[in-house]
Amino acid sequence: MQAEKEMKSETILICERAKAVSREFGGISDEKINAALLAMADELIEGTDEILAQNLCDVEAARGQISEVMIDRLSLSASRIEAMADGIRQIAKLPSPLGRVLERTERPNGLQIERVSVPIGVIGIIYESRPNVTSDAAALALKSGNVCILKSGKEAYRSAKAIVDALKRGLTKAGLPVDSVNLINDTTRAGANELMRANGLVDMLIPRGGAGLIRACVENATVPCLETGTGICHIYIDKDADLDKAVQIVKNAKTSRPSVCNAAEVCLVHKDVAGDVLPMLKRALADERKISGEVPVELRLDSRAQDFIEGTEATEADFDTEFLDYVLAVSVVDGIEDAVEHISRHSTNHSEAIVTENAGAADYFTCHVDSAAVYVNASTRFTDGGEFGLGCEMGISTQKLHARGPLGIRELTTYKYIIRGNGQIR
Amino acid sequence: MQAEKEMKSETILICERAKAVSREFGGISDEKINAALLAMADELIEGTDEILAQNLCDVEAARGQISEVMIDRLSLSASRIEAMADGIRQIAKLPSPLGRVLERTERPNGLQIERVSVPIGVIGIIYESRPNVTSDAAALALKSGNVCILKSGKEAYRSAKAIVDALKRGLTKAGLPVDSVNLINDTTRAGANELMRANGLVDMLIPRGGAGLIRACVENATVPCLETGTGICHIYIDKDADLDKAVQIVKNAKTSRPSVCNAAEVCLVHKDVAGDVLPMLKRALADERKISGEVPVELRLDSRAQDFIEGTEATEADFDTEFLDYVLAVSVVDGIEDAVEHISRHSTNHSEAIVTENAGAADYFTCHVDSAAVYVNASTRFTDGGEFGLGCEMGISTQKLHARGPLGIRELTTYKYIIRGNGQIR
Repeated sequence: MQAEKEMKSETILICERAKAVSREFGGISDEKINAALLAMADELIEGTDEILAQNLCDVEAARGQISEVMIDRLSLSASRIEAMADGIRQIAKLPSPLGRVLERTERPNGLQIERVSVPIGVIGIIYESRPNVTSDAAALALKSGNVCILKSGKEAYRSAKAIVDALKRGLTKAGLPVDSVNLINDTTRAGANELMRANGLVDMLIPRGGAGLIRACVENATVPCLETGTGICHIYIDKDADLDKAVQIVKNAKTSRPSVCNAAEVCLVHKDVAGDVLPMLKRALADERKISGEVPVELRLDSRAQDFIEGTEATEADFDTEFLDYVLAVSVVDGIEDAVEHISRHSTNHSEAIVTENAGAADYFTCHVDSAAVYVNASTRFTDGGEFGLGCEMGISTQKLHARGPLGIRELTTYKYIIRGNGQIR
Repeated sequence: MQAEKEMKSETILICERAKAVSREFGGISDEKINAALLAMADELIEGTDEILAQNLCDVEAARGQISEVMIDRLSLSASRIEAMADGIRQIAKLPSPLGRVLERTERPNGLQIERVSVPIGVIGIIYESRPNVTSDAAALALKSGNVCILKSGKEAYRSAKAIVDALKRGLTKAGLPVDSVNLINDTTRAGANELMRANGLVDMLIPRGGAGLIRACVENATVPCLETGTGICHIYIDKDADLDKAVQIVKNAKTSRPSVCNAAEVCLVHKDVAGDVLPMLKRALADERKISGEVPVELRLDSRAQDFIEGTEATEADFDTEFLDYVLAVSVVDGIEDAVEHISRHSTNHSEAIVTENAGAADYFTCHVDSAAVYVNASTRFTDGGEFGLGCEMGISTQKLHARGPLGIRELTTYKYIIRGNGQIR
C-alpha cells in the first residue's frame, strides 16, 4: 500500500483527495457553502501582504520574459485583491444552482422520476498568468458544489499559491475540508498532462487561456473537456441596416476592449450599402481616433472594399485571425446568404451580429448562424456572464456539448435522475 | 483544388458534406423532418429483400468468427425490419426538441436575451454489430435536426449499407439532401480514428458498444465525446428494507435481461438483515431457478456473506466486473455509509438502487450516490429511454458533461443565445 502510494505523483494524490471530498459534498447546504465563501473572501483580504509579496516575486521573475501587457495581467495590488474578495462575496449572494428539480414525471407504473441538478464533482481548471482567475474559479466551483483543482501558469504560481493558501484558511475556518480547493504544485507540462488524463478522478476540465492552451487540452485530454474561448467574431451590416447604428456597434465591438474574446475581428458589408457605410466606418474607426490621439484601427480590406476606402490589403489569413488588437478585417458581400456562408467558414462560433432593420433578415441570420451568441443590432461585447445576468463566469464555451456561451454556476452543474418506487420491476 | 481533394480520405469528404448539410438544417421545420422519417420507414420496408440478402452475406461471413449471441444480434428478419421501420415512425411522432425557448430575459439595458434549443450539428456514431442501431441512430439524429455519420462494425457493414441506402432513398423522396444520413465505408480502425479526430466537422461523437470501443473513443477522440454504457449497477438492501420487495427487485434486476447495461451486477446487504435475506435471495436466484429449468444465478460471495449462504468465493475483481451474465457479486456491509462508500469506489455511475422503507435512508442514498440514475425501491432495469418516457434513446450516458442517463432526442440538441437589441453598445 505504502509502496503504491509512493509511486503516485503529487498531482494524482491531489486528484484523489479532491475526489474524496467531492463525494462528501453530495449533501452540502448552500448556507455552508456561502459561509465558506465569505470566510475565503475575508482571508484573502487578511492575506493581502503575503499575496502581494509573492506576487512581487512572480512579477520580478517574469519581467523581460513576457510582454508588458502580460506583466500588467500578472500584477496584483491591494485594490485588485479587494476586487477579488468582492467577486467571491458576489458569488455567495447568487441563488444556489443545486437541488433544483428540473423535471418531474410519474410513469404509468407509478414510478416517480425526478431530474435534479447536482454538482459535476471535480473540476480541473488550467489557466495562465492572471492571478484573479485563481479566486474566481475556486469560488464559482465551490458555489456549485464542486471541488476544484487549479493549475496556474508557472509565471503566476507563487501568487496562486498565496491566494489558495488564504482560501484554504477560509475553508478551515468555515469547517469545510481543506482539500475543497486545490492547486497543483507541478507547474510543468507533465502536471497539466496528468490532470488532463485523470479519468475517474476529474469529471470535467476547463482550459482558460490562449488558443495554444485550448488546443493542447483538446488534443491531449481524455477527461471530458469544455473548450472555451477563442473568438473570431463577425458583424454583418445588412442592406437594411441603420448605418449610424452599424458604425456605433462596430466601433464599440472593435475598440472598447480589443484584447478580449468577444471583440469583433471581422466586418462584412452588404454591397448595396458599402459605398455609404465604409467611408463612415473609416472615419469613426481610423481618422477620428487618429485626430483625438487614440489608437486608430487598421482596416484590412478585401479587394471589393478597397473600391470604396483606403486601407491595408487583406490576405486570406486575415479572415481567420483573432487579432486581439486594433485591427479589423473588412469584406464586401453580395447579400445575407454570402455573409452567413462566410461566417460558417471562418467563425470560431463565439459571437456574431447582424445590423438590420429588416425582421426577415434578422430571423434568417439568427436561424442560420451557428454560434453560441447571435446578436441583432447590438455589440458582440455583451457575451459575458455579468452582462447576461449570470453573475460571474468561468469562461465562454465555444463548443456545443454541455454548455455554450458564458459558463455561469448553472453550467458547472449536471443532473441525476432520482426514481422512487414501491417495488416496481420490469 | 483538385489535388487537395484527392489527398482527402473518403471519410473526411463525407464529414465535409455532412457539415455542409448541417448548415442548411438551421431553419428546417419539424414537418419536413417527419415527412422524411416516414419516407425512410417506407423505404426500409420496400428494401426488405435487398437488406435481408446483404444481411445474409454478413451473417455467413461472420459465422464461426463471432459467438452465437453476436450472430443473433447481427441477424435480421422481415419482422425485425418492420420493427425498425416502426421505431422510425414512433420517433416521427415525438414532439420536436428544436426551437424551444429555454429561457428569456430582458436586461436593464433593454437587450432581449433568449436561450433557444438548436441541433448539435454533425453527430458521429460508432457502433458494433447490431444493424438496427443504423436506423435508430439515423432517425434520432434527424428528428433532432442533426446530420449523422454512422460507423458500423465491419461484421455488419453490408447490412448497414443496405439500410442506409434505403434511408437515403426516403430522404430523396422527401426532398432532403441525400447526405443527411451517412455511412462511413472505411470499416477499419483508421476510419474510426479519422471520425474521432475530425474537429470542426464533427460536433459530437457517441460510441455505442462494449467497454473496449468506449475506451478507444475516450483515449483517441479529440472531438467532444459522449461516453455511454458500461454498467456495474448495485442494489443495496437496507436494514429497513421490505425483504420480499428486495428479493423481487434483485431477481428482476439480475435475471430479466442479464446482457444489458442496466442489469444489476452487485448486491450489498446490511449486516442486520443478511441472515434473513441472503437465504431468500439464494432460493429465488439459484435454487428455484434450477428446479424450474432456468439458468441459476451464480452467487459470488464475500467472506461475510459466506457465513449465511453457500456460493462461489468472490475475488476483489468480482466487484469491478460487468458480468453481463447470470452472475451476482454479493457483499455484506455494516451500514448505509459503507454501502455508499463501496458504490463510490466500484460503480460506473450508471444506475444504483436502495431497498428500504426508511425515508431518511432513502434520502441519504439518493443524495450521496453519484450515479446517472438512483432508485428507491425499484429495479435498475428501468434506466431506459422508453421506460423514462423519452421515446427512444441513443444510449445511456455515464459521464457528467452534457447529459446523463438515457439519451433521448432532447439530449441530441444544444442551445444558442439569441440577443435582440436596438443599437446597444457596451
